[in-house]
Amino acid sequence: MTEVYRSAEIAAALANVDLTAAMEAAFLAYSSGRAVVPPVGELLFAEPPGEVHIKYGYVRGEPYYVIKVASGFYNHPALGLSSSNGLMLLFSQETGELKAVLLDEGLLTDHRTAAAGALAARYFAPPRVDAIGILGTGIQAELQLRYLAPVTACRRVLVYGRSEAAIASYQHRLADTNFSISGVPSTEDFGDCQLIVTTTPSAAPLLHSVSRGTHVTAVGSDTAGKQELDARLLAMADVVVVDSRAQSASRGEVFQAVRSGKLDMERVSEIGQVIAGERRGRQDAADISIVDLTGVATQDIAIARAVYERLTAAQPSSLT
Amino acid sequence: MTEVYRSAEIAAALANVDLTAAMEAAFLAYSSGRAVVPPVGELLFAEPPGEVHIKYGYVRGEPYYVIKVASGFYNHPALGLSSSNGLMLLFSQETGELKAVLLDEGLLTDHRTAAAGALAARYFAPPRVDAIGILGTGIQAELQLRYLAPVTACRRVLVYGRSEAAIASYQHRLADTNFSISGVPSTEDFGDCQLIVTTTPSAAPLLHSVSRGTHVTAVGSDTAGKQELDARLLAMADVVVVDSRAQSASRGEVFQAVRSGKLDMERVSEIGQVIAGERRGRQDAADISIVDLTGVATQDIAIARAVYERLTAAQPSSLT
Repeated sequence: MTEVYRSAEIAAALANVDLTAAMEAAFLAYSSGRAVVPPVGELLFAEPPGEVHIKYGYVRGEPYYVIKVASGFYNHPALGLSSSNGLMLLFSQETGELKAVLLDEGLLTDHRTAAAGALAARYFAPPRVDAIGILGTGIQAELQLRYLAPVTACRRVLVYGRSEAAIASYQHRLADTNFSISGVPSTEDFGDCQLIVTTTPSAAPLLHSVSRGTHVTAVGSDTAGKQELDARLLAMADVVVVDSRAQSASRGEVFQAVRSGKLDMERVSEIGQVIAGERRGRQDAADISIVDLTGVATQDIAIARAVYERLTAAQPSSLT
Repeated sequence: MTEVYRSAEIAAALANVDLTAAMEAAFLAYSSGRAVVPPVGELLFAEPPGEVHIKYGYVRGEPYYVIKVASGFYNHPALGLSSSNGLMLLFSQETGELKAVLLDEGLLTDHRTAAAGALAARYFAPPRVDAIGILGTGIQAELQLRYLAPVTACRRVLVYGRSEAAIASYQHRLADTNFSISGVPSTEDFGDCQLIVTTTPSAAPLLHSVSRGTHVTAVGSDTAGKQELDARLLAMADVVVVDSRAQSASRGEVFQAVRSGKLDMERVSEIGQVIAGERRGRQDAADISIVDLTGVATQDIAIARAVYERLTAAQPSSLT
């Protein structure tokens, strides 16, 4: 019997899931070679303009396989519609049955991405953080900060956005937290920030320099056309880490830096390799570290499984 | 708001849909070039052995796009589980919203395939049919015959199956029809059959000769490894038609016959071209015609739309 869950139930279940642990396991599984992840399926639309991505796969030895559908129709917000949409399908590897339809409307992708950012900060941020720098003011900029709360004691936040209204909205949406959030007119004001998270879909670099000892998690660029970090930052970084070296060959910040000749792919590790202790992480408080996340299917598999197990554990049994 | 429909509701709605008309429109759309159909996504499993196919696409100018997931886990029947499973997702092209989850468990694929067979018979079967030959005794062999009922007046059926028990089961399942069904020990006994439908997953040819004036619809082979018809049959046929010339370059009966040098791809038309009047169909009662169906995404799009519109039309409005 296939269970169907709506976004409100999924959001409630998510509150009781240790997502950072789930992402840690997801990156380990990805880098261990136990994951089977075919190329992303893509469906493009001209009128109205949009794109649909189908990501799917499984981890050998785990109970489920997962298919995720995520769509983006970029003119929709002007019509009062959501630009993004999506769902996840969770099937049994053992029986082939469709166990659950998670009608999350993109919520799970947003949260698994934010949890991966928090995990990156836990592994790579320096011990002392005077301020957190956030590039962008959208849903991902919001969630990244929420997920950072348990990872760092720092509560001073500098945010750079495309307008004062966008920054005011960001501050308003995070008013329930104990972060102290100030807008800055330029990313050059991030000099005090030893922990920076970039979350925009910018096509041109927005962050050109950082202080010694800074960690940057780059979340926004996940295609060949998006770039938030000046390639010189990757050239000067002591540690450059990605979620997937295979994906970074064609998308994200590392792709841009390698293409421009400023970074050698040999220097790039996977976060799963660092978690496993196979590759080195930050060695010194003065190191500059960069983690470039383009998003891998094992994250979707892990969050779908964690939420599903939470949803089914929470159900009162009809037999008791 | 996403509506979720289970297989019982879907089956009930299907009874009120003109599927043959829907398949006619689907093949026309496919051959007209209005369809956007990316390559099939494929996920393979070793333990237990299985495969998952993701077929998706849309027709420009229509209201929906559709993603179909179909799985086959071939050891499952021995465990009392269904070997096939699946669902269809129907989204709005206009808003990007997921309108419906059709939890059909493979039912819609079975029916759209059978309706396409009936359509092929309507366009290509000779005026006089003394007997219908059915190769195979599974669900597709059953549905093909049910969908042929309104297309031909012939009620005499010869069926070839892999065991007497399989033939007895086939006769039993179709006892509610007015077909008179006899088992035959060999396809050589199909001499009286001017209309033959082949529905098995055989890897080696099972049908080696037919009488003049016969039409054959080949449904079983949809991969590079399956073949039901001797390539010589395609060589001698007066008319050879497929649903998709592109797919037939790598799968199905036409692929086998072209690969063996017995058929020139130039001789092969698409059924959508024949429906549109662009390519010729049967010219003479003595012609041998073969329609090789490997299944195209526009069929899935068309059946999902037809069923969804039926399901939503059938709902009593809460405003009246």
